[in-house]
Amino acid sequence: MQKFEQLLNDFREFLNNENLNFEPKELYEPISYTLALGGKRLRPVMALLSCDYFGGDYNEAMNTAMGIEIFHNFTLLHDDIMDDAPIRRGKDTVYKKWNSNIAILSGDTMFALAYKYITKTKAEYLQPILEVFNQTAIEVCEGQQFDMNFETDDNVCIEDYMMMIRLKTAVFLGASLKIGAIIGGASQNDVENIYHFGEYLGMAFQLQDDFLDVYGDEEKFGKKTGGDIITNKKTYLYLKAFELAGEEDLAILKKHFVPNHPDSNQKIQKIKDIYLKLGVDKYSEIEIKNYYQKAMSYLDKIEHSGNNKAELKSLANRLIKRDY
Amino acid sequence: MQKFEQLLNDFREFLNNENLNFEPKELYEPISYTLALGGKRLRPVMALLSCDYFGGDYNEAMNTAMGIEIFHNFTLLHDDIMDDAPIRRGKDTVYKKWNSNIAILSGDTMFALAYKYITKTKAEYLQPILEVFNQTAIEVCEGQQFDMNFETDDNVCIEDYMMMIRLKTAVFLGASLKIGAIIGGASQNDVENIYHFGEYLGMAFQLQDDFLDVYGDEEKFGKKTGGDIITNKKTYLYLKAFELAGEEDLAILKKHFVPNHPDSNQKIQKIKDIYLKLGVDKYSEIEIKNYYQKAMSYLDKIEHSGNNKAELKSLANRLIKRDY
Repeated sequence: MQKFEQLLNDFREFLNNENLNFEPKELYEPISYTLALGGKRLRPVMALLSCDYFGGDYNEAMNTAMGIEIFHNFTLLHDDIMDDAPIRRGKDTVYKKWNSNIAILSGDTMFALAYKYITKTKAEYLQPILEVFNQTAIEVCEGQQFDMNFETDDNVCIEDYMMMIRLKTAVFLGASLKIGAIIGGASQNDVENIYHFGEYLGMAFQLQDDFLDVYGDEEKFGKKTGGDIITNKKTYLYLKAFELAGEEDLAILKKHFVPNHPDSNQKIQKIKDIYLKLGVDKYSEIEIKNYYQKAMSYLDKIEHSGNNKAELKSLANRLIKRDY
Repeated sequence: MQKFEQLLNDFREFLNNENLNFEPKELYEPISYTLALGGKRLRPVMALLSCDYFGGDYNEAMNTAMGIEIFHNFTLLHDDIMDDAPIRRGKDTVYKKWNSNIAILSGDTMFALAYKYITKTKAEYLQPILEVFNQTAIEVCEGQQFDMNFETDDNVCIEDYMMMIRLKTAVFLGASLKIGAIIGGASQNDVENIYHFGEYLGMAFQLQDDFLDVYGDEEKFGKKTGGDIITNKKTYLYLKAFELAGEEDLAILKKHFVPNHPDSNQKIQKIKDIYLKLGVDKYSEIEIKNYYQKAMSYLDKIEHSGNNKAELKSLANRLIKRDY
């Protein structure tokens, strides 16, 4: 069994053994429900893996990993209210199953619970870990706000988009590794190296997610493709198409990227035709590759070599499907 | 100038000098707006006062006090969404002035900012302070959920109500003093003594708030009386009236405590008549006095006497208008 799977199992066992069935049940049932929805448990395992890599006892990072996972699920819970998303992981979202007030307040409670777990970290690591975590929590909120702003902003450029996904997604992957590294006793240099490894991996991961939303194998990807096109989401592909399009293609893009398009399938096909014509898919793959390679360059920079770097490399390949 | 005023001035100066004008402005403008609405700054000053009382340098508690105030304002911001409250301190609430999504997310950001300030506390105090703060944050959420539950629960009793206001209001006053005491270097006993002093003071304070909502001098109180009656809020007075009422009075209570009563002034008058007849106001004053005296008994138990206990006594009299 690979290290990642072993840590994932350990984390799942820890999570399952935690009792969060407190009163009032209106507050705690949505929390248990949210945490039981599953998910890849990527961020907590990244923290454990990083701690382990630098020679720490990963059990010492377990509470912090739990805090990281609770925080991540809190952001999803509140994002679902803001994005009006009724389904997550095949089940009703909390605001849909209960109501918005319950979703707001159980989310807030999860935020506090996340800190409760993180505070159990050994006192000597607590302050540096919290500095990373607080900053990341703030940045994730900033990213979500930029994401919402972009919905109604007609002047979004690719640079803006990259900034947004860095805040909303990438920094938290970097922070999970960084926090694990601090608990694992990594050097200051390596703490930064592994942060950037995770950050750039996160950029590649989000760009790949956008790419797969259009070009993914529906069976493998686990959801229908074209969702971002239907909702006119200003992804890299969307923005690159507008950047490259000549007058004629621009007219087609503008004609189909409208709210309430009468025919979703036709819309997806027309937009995909333009993407293909402009080579937007290829540009996207180049960007993914660039960020992946940037991540790898930071992996190379990591000075500590006590454990096997292959474990971190395999984490990257778990996130990014192709080996660039 | 009394100590309280001096600390209040210092805290206000600190708050005014903090720059929170970051990007995106859609996220940070509501935060600055909320923090500029004013308020008594009671909780942060309580932390500073407690730190000072136990012989600590209150400047070392300033960042933590700021975190406490930001957290308090975050709870108000999210409560206003949940309670559908359009006005706070004479101005539009955030969800009203902007929208719910902005209110949710700027609230979340304030929660993270609160921790950012608290994390600046000296490392040696950080873990014990966070343990208090995390637990309190969770309890405040629990209190708000109970409060919302009670709106539609016809079996709420006075004991439930006391439990709810303890969680929603009292523990945070206790925690503010406790956190200040920890930074001030108080003994373990005194840390607990001052917590209970604040907790019971908080109970008396909330009961007094309910009392003044019906019997307050509108000019002094700063708002129209009868608000809780109009909204059928299950306060101590409401619950005590139902507990004491005979068949006839019960019928009147039930007739008037309905949603969308056609005549608010008549409703207030009818309910006040029943309250007077049943002596509910007197029972309320007895409860306020009981909690006030419990608070005082914990003030007496405080062993440390380096500074003047009169400062803490005067804090109590600032919160509770009559000297019981």
